[in-house]
Amino acid sequence: MREPVTPDPGSGKTPIEQRMVELFRAEEGKVFSGEELGNALKVSRTAVWKHVNKLRARGYGIESVPARGYRFLTAPDTLTATELSTGLRTGRIGRRIVSADETDSTNLLAFRLAEKGAEDGVVVIADSQTGGRGRLGRRWESPGGVNLYCSVILRPAMPPVRAPQLTFLSAVAVARAVESVTPLCPRIKWPNDILVNGLKIAGLLNEMSSETDTIHFVVLGIGVNLNMKKEQFPEGLRYPASSLMLESGACVNRVEFTRALLTALDTLYEDYLEHGFASARNEWLRRSMVQGRRVRVSSGDEATEGIVGGIDDDGALLLQRGDGVSERVLAGDVTILDDLHP
Amino acid sequence: MREPVTPDPGSGKTPIEQRMVELFRAEEGKVFSGEELGNALKVSRTAVWKHVNKLRARGYGIESVPARGYRFLTAPDTLTATELSTGLRTGRIGRRIVSADETDSTNLLAFRLAEKGAEDGVVVIADSQTGGRGRLGRRWESPGGVNLYCSVILRPAMPPVRAPQLTFLSAVAVARAVESVTPLCPRIKWPNDILVNGLKIAGLLNEMSSETDTIHFVVLGIGVNLNMKKEQFPEGLRYPASSLMLESGACVNRVEFTRALLTALDTLYEDYLEHGFASARNEWLRRSMVQGRRVRVSSGDEATEGIVGGIDDDGALLLQRGDGVSERVLAGDVTILDDLHP
Repeated sequence: MREPVTPDPGSGKTPIEQRMVELFRAEEGKVFSGEELGNALKVSRTAVWKHVNKLRARGYGIESVPARGYRFLTAPDTLTATELSTGLRTGRIGRRIVSADETDSTNLLAFRLAEKGAEDGVVVIADSQTGGRGRLGRRWESPGGVNLYCSVILRPAMPPVRAPQLTFLSAVAVARAVESVTPLCPRIKWPNDILVNGLKIAGLLNEMSSETDTIHFVVLGIGVNLNMKKEQFPEGLRYPASSLMLESGACVNRVEFTRALLTALDTLYEDYLEHGFASARNEWLRRSMVQGRRVRVSSGDEATEGIVGGIDDDGALLLQRGDGVSERVLAGDVTILDDLHP
Repeated sequence: MREPVTPDPGSGKTPIEQRMVELFRAEEGKVFSGEELGNALKVSRTAVWKHVNKLRARGYGIESVPARGYRFLTAPDTLTATELSTGLRTGRIGRRIVSADETDSTNLLAFRLAEKGAEDGVVVIADSQTGGRGRLGRRWESPGGVNLYCSVILRPAMPPVRAPQLTFLSAVAVARAVESVTPLCPRIKWPNDILVNGLKIAGLLNEMSSETDTIHFVVLGIGVNLNMKKEQFPEGLRYPASSLMLESGACVNRVEFTRALLTALDTLYEDYLEHGFASARNEWLRRSMVQGRRVRVSSGDEATEGIVGGIDDDGALLLQRGDGVSERVLAGDVTILDDLHP
């Protein structure tokens, strides 16, 4: 991924390379003359040649057909703004995509862009992260070329106490994307671990800037292990982790997965803004491993047991205890107790 | 304020200049010989001379008494780590202070330091801000030499839905500090405007990094208009604003105010971690302009009227409506309706 960070995420112009890829794709297999491309893109034939070479440098296969022109052969599976934007039909999420070859963390880059005014729905993606972070601030392994590390800037007009609901949307979006590009059956474990075959395949980490009653912006950080190999995982992980490739046995197309994720999030967010948390919550509960199960939630030295009755508007787990008392649990590690006695 | 940003906010060493100021202050009026200072600070007499000159360059008045040594005369009213730390007796807040002459925004600087691991209680202060932000992301005027712009990094072990409570702590801390260094009587207007004589004198803006059930860190941004003059306020402010100097008629010592603020926040935060939100909430309600009053809360096209019964754990305003129904209000602009009929 050689594309630099888009300097101005607020600029509304579609880059020429992206429009060229769209032209090629509209009539697959066709040989386009330099003149034809130049006319369509309103640039000179020399400029056409330069942009074709730029695309080739990014891994696109474009054949030069002597005396006739150019034929589009293959697109690379790299998470560039050009490749992701082509054919992405979302309303808000990813209307503007900022991609980087490497960054400290996509959340931090998104936070800086949001501070400078980047609008609702801007997506930041990096091929690799030098300072990726996971649960409890631990390191999140972020090698290049295999996974997805992205951050989505949202500016919902609502108070900050509702922000935790957005994490539930991103968990459901990851689950939907996994289902749409693999035969795997993802499950969500409260609070928001996304598991495949009992192994963690994604991490969610959020940032927010707000006043008491108003969110300025939220950054939803989403990391998904797509094609990571066994030897790329660090030793001694607290939660056993895996990748979609390891679990499905097949390499996942990163561009296809990312488009599916952004599309799912777009639909969920649109519905959330219009109708509130109910529908995302219901979908979360359907995919959750805990609804109706007997669980123990441990936090520090304390533990509570009960039957899970759902989650409330704060994302708290609602437990029906043995003594009939209902309890709200805001944090902790969940163990499912009735696994052996279904 | 010429002191650069402390490169390592985690380093536990007290700088030599600060220890020198503490020595001078322990015996006011005394002439210290270079040898005496050198022995106490474990440095050479040449080093003593260099550190004395560094302090002078920062505005400290230190007299050279020929053939005898140095006498401490005056400290500058600049918000450097050296000056603020001297005599600050807090447990967590401000154990480490990072000060800068100018920065984009202290919140953003604190956020970057927190990402790199700056611990619970680190305070970031700048003399002026080039990108200070206020309510709804509007510009917050941040001229140098007159006000306080600070950000406090907190790492409470709790879920992110509780984070809004921390803003109420910072509002109470500002009110306490105003009371301790001026004869003014500050009031708090929900959500968290701090008013003196009906005019806004402080702004609060927070950032947070979290997972669903765990806060990584919170940055509490606190801006207080201390000695700002009338002509330094921008035209057309939505909320009428003022400074403590304009309202009290006397210049406020910035160092004294900041120490009072950090001390108040330290006490409030310690109590909050130990005993929860109750005590800060009670103090907030006592200082609030709205408790027990009939108010209208407007948000967009909607408005609700009722008698204020308090605030809940989310910081929501609890309204008793005329029809007897209780309502929780999470956001909006408050107008007090019974001002004319007390």
